[in-house]
Amino acid sequence: MNTAFSTEDSHLYEQVAGKVVHLIRSGALRAGDRIPSVRQTSADQSVSVSTVLQAYFLLENQGFIEARPQSGFYVRARLESLPPLPKISAPPSSASHPNVSDLIMDVISSIREPDVVPLGAATIAPHLLPLQSLSRFTAKAARTNAHKMVAYEVTPGNVDLRRQIARRNVTWDVPTNPDEVITTCGGTEALNLALRAVAEPGETVAIESPCYYGILQIIENMGFKALEIPTDPEEGLCLSSLASALKRHDVKAVVSVSNFNNPLGSCMPEEKKKELVELLTRRKVPLIEDDIYGDLNFGETRPKPAKAFDREGWVILCSSFSKTLAPGFRVGWVLPGRFRARVEKLKIALSFSTASLPQIVLADYLQSGGYDRHLRHLRKTLQTQVNQVSDAVARYFPKKTKMTRPAGGCVLWVEFPKSVDALRLHREALAKKISIAPGPIFSPKQKFRNCIRLNAGHPWSERFDAALRTLGELASNLA
Amino acid sequence: MNTAFSTEDSHLYEQVAGKVVHLIRSGALRAGDRIPSVRQTSADQSVSVSTVLQAYFLLENQGFIEARPQSGFYVRARLESLPPLPKISAPPSSASHPNVSDLIMDVISSIREPDVVPLGAATIAPHLLPLQSLSRFTAKAARTNAHKMVAYEVTPGNVDLRRQIARRNVTWDVPTNPDEVITTCGGTEALNLALRAVAEPGETVAIESPCYYGILQIIENMGFKALEIPTDPEEGLCLSSLASALKRHDVKAVVSVSNFNNPLGSCMPEEKKKELVELLTRRKVPLIEDDIYGDLNFGETRPKPAKAFDREGWVILCSSFSKTLAPGFRVGWVLPGRFRARVEKLKIALSFSTASLPQIVLADYLQSGGYDRHLRHLRKTLQTQVNQVSDAVARYFPKKTKMTRPAGGCVLWVEFPKSVDALRLHREALAKKISIAPGPIFSPKQKFRNCIRLNAGHPWSERFDAALRTLGELASNLA
Repeated sequence: MNTAFSTEDSHLYEQVAGKVVHLIRSGALRAGDRIPSVRQTSADQSVSVSTVLQAYFLLENQGFIEARPQSGFYVRARLESLPPLPKISAPPSSASHPNVSDLIMDVISSIREPDVVPLGAATIAPHLLPLQSLSRFTAKAARTNAHKMVAYEVTPGNVDLRRQIARRNVTWDVPTNPDEVITTCGGTEALNLALRAVAEPGETVAIESPCYYGILQIIENMGFKALEIPTDPEEGLCLSSLASALKRHDVKAVVSVSNFNNPLGSCMPEEKKKELVELLTRRKVPLIEDDIYGDLNFGETRPKPAKAFDREGWVILCSSFSKTLAPGFRVGWVLPGRFRARVEKLKIALSFSTASLPQIVLADYLQSGGYDRHLRHLRKTLQTQVNQVSDAVARYFPKKTKMTRPAGGCVLWVEFPKSVDALRLHREALAKKISIAPGPIFSPKQKFRNCIRLNAGHPWSERFDAALRTLGELASNLA
Repeated sequence: MNTAFSTEDSHLYEQVAGKVVHLIRSGALRAGDRIPSVRQTSADQSVSVSTVLQAYFLLENQGFIEARPQSGFYVRARLESLPPLPKISAPPSSASHPNVSDLIMDVISSIREPDVVPLGAATIAPHLLPLQSLSRFTAKAARTNAHKMVAYEVTPGNVDLRRQIARRNVTWDVPTNPDEVITTCGGTEALNLALRAVAEPGETVAIESPCYYGILQIIENMGFKALEIPTDPEEGLCLSSLASALKRHDVKAVVSVSNFNNPLGSCMPEEKKKELVELLTRRKVPLIEDDIYGDLNFGETRPKPAKAFDREGWVILCSSFSKTLAPGFRVGWVLPGRFRARVEKLKIALSFSTASLPQIVLADYLQSGGYDRHLRHLRKTLQTQVNQVSDAVARYFPKKTKMTRPAGGCVLWVEFPKSVDALRLHREALAKKISIAPGPIFSPKQKFRNCIRLNAGHPWSERFDAALRTLGELASNLA
């Protein structure tokens, strides 16, 4: 490892920074206040000047404070200056077959071009992933487990990995028997299995509005109808709307990205999750919960999935390691509750089993404790990056722009004034080598025409600052 | 490598053996004839006695000759003594929704128990696979390609691997642009994509009779109807029956394992493949061709797939490396002809992309030439093993048993007298720790009740001999 600070030091400066954050959050320090000088803090807390400087640079990076030349460090006025939140969405109240997958194909192929500024796809910069560790564990598996890596990991999948997943689930109150977990080819296959297990072509599935486009692709390709439910940009699905929709429609499943929603960044509060599960259990409607971003909390604790409140097995929990660790490993999992037998049968018919080697490597890596260490760093990094993108939106985007406040994950949702056509903006930005995810790909009928999703999975740089400034200019010209 | 003979020697004794096989096949040497003595052959062909001995041991292993104590080597009477071929199958002429997937689940979970004699699942013994090479190439990928193995190999998949697949296809007259190949999570996903691309739930798909149970699982889970077509145990689909079925039914696709069929071991002759493709092209019906066993020819040349005769893109060619190289890698591929756009869209919705690391390793291994070397050995080994299982069937199974003559692959199909109930035999065999694949799992309505499939993917041993003797006794008791 080629870092300037040892783990001890890192721990120390993070403690110092944490105290300042606490003072800001508690209101003891307000926007514009000067924070104690480096020398004073060094003396007060008996740490070196260099440690305090590290702490202050971290806070500056995270957008909490700013340096003023010849004057010191001040609390930034960032919260006050951010654009307002979008309103709760207001989708049509009828269910319909989605008609968006061709547009999605078109957009996602264009935003994956190699030389664009990657604000489109919800990906994390590869060098933020633990490449060295994964490389080491892969070499180890090749050396010691060649026989196993070549043989089928017969469904339900690698037992060591399923044990690790179960162990983690228990930490956030999802009691899990390893035998209940089924590993899948990424979160995408998990969602396919869950949906196919509970609904037949032509039947109706309730979704969030806006909705992750991957879910729309599955729904369209399977021939389901989608019923969009109004969704709050901070708290997710609107439960009163959902309750009344369930009375009017024969809904076969509800799909929700409950934690750090894609594309909103929202996180459903615990009480509301409980209420959601109770509502659906009463009506015997399965909840398909996509918790793929759940590990990426900015706050102190990793939020529970709604599955934690599931007493009768109506929640099918889906997740994967694609957003936190290794997209290319294609290892996800599903905890199917009362639908286990059906999901297992579908999995075998769909891909027989999940690739062995990535499962072996992940099991070993999780067992080593490496994943938790990695997450601790990744969460802080993503929080900083989301703050930086948010600040740039506040600075560069047209007046009357609205924006979500992600509580975790790596994406945020921007609503422009009505006149800004996101598909046109997408095309114009792409011509300038900037990728965005235009709002219409998050809607069965290509609504959200004045919205975009921005990815904050890459470290901030001049290039990103310039790209967001350009985006703001392009949008202003359309406004 | 820890072998007693160098590659040169190996080449030499195979040449000597080849000459003897030629004499037997041409009729110059007949069953019961004494073959030239070791010393005489050594003198005639100017090779060492040890080389001739090696050649004769190989021929003995392959079932061509037998040693008689104090007398020498004799041509075995094996061809004459094998049970006769089953007749062309005679399935019902109506299409119906399969009702067999629960039975399949039940059977395949039981035959995969670790301590049974593996005559059930169509697997190849792990130590016949190139574990050391794959391990070395995996370690290399981890060392030099960590960044790539962790990132998505965005669909259509790893370009080096697609190039290698294209290069191989061209060898057997399937012109392939690497851009047309889409890698998949094993052959199973390839078949799912192909079927879903051309048929909607409720529509009819024509299949072989008997049919590989994995295809039946897909058809049942997707809600298609299956129309069974009479199938010849040596030449595959009966084309006159297929032609008349196409007139009577609105068939959306025909599925065929054309080379070294699972479960029959049959191989459709080239002329017939051409005729099949012409028939389907005329009627604009897609052929979904599963060529997963195509590389495992016992004869001199690798047979062409039917795709080689496809001029208008109606053939969707599916294959994978699961039966020849690394089942656990879960890397298959599809060459979708005129359905490329649709298959690509479905693949992205189904699993987004195929795991990166196994694709990187396979591409590198194929590039190295290792695969072809491995195949040369594997083909001979499988031929020997199929002969050994065939001989045991001839020796131990009840009178009036019939059996196929696989021209490649690792499975053969046995038809008992009508009174033998294969499901009962399966249960009784399992109680004695012997697994078989009972006939009913190869039929939409659980027919073939007096048939079983036997796997010959494992090296012969006393254990297998005893298991086949026991199977024969159990079957005789039921006959």
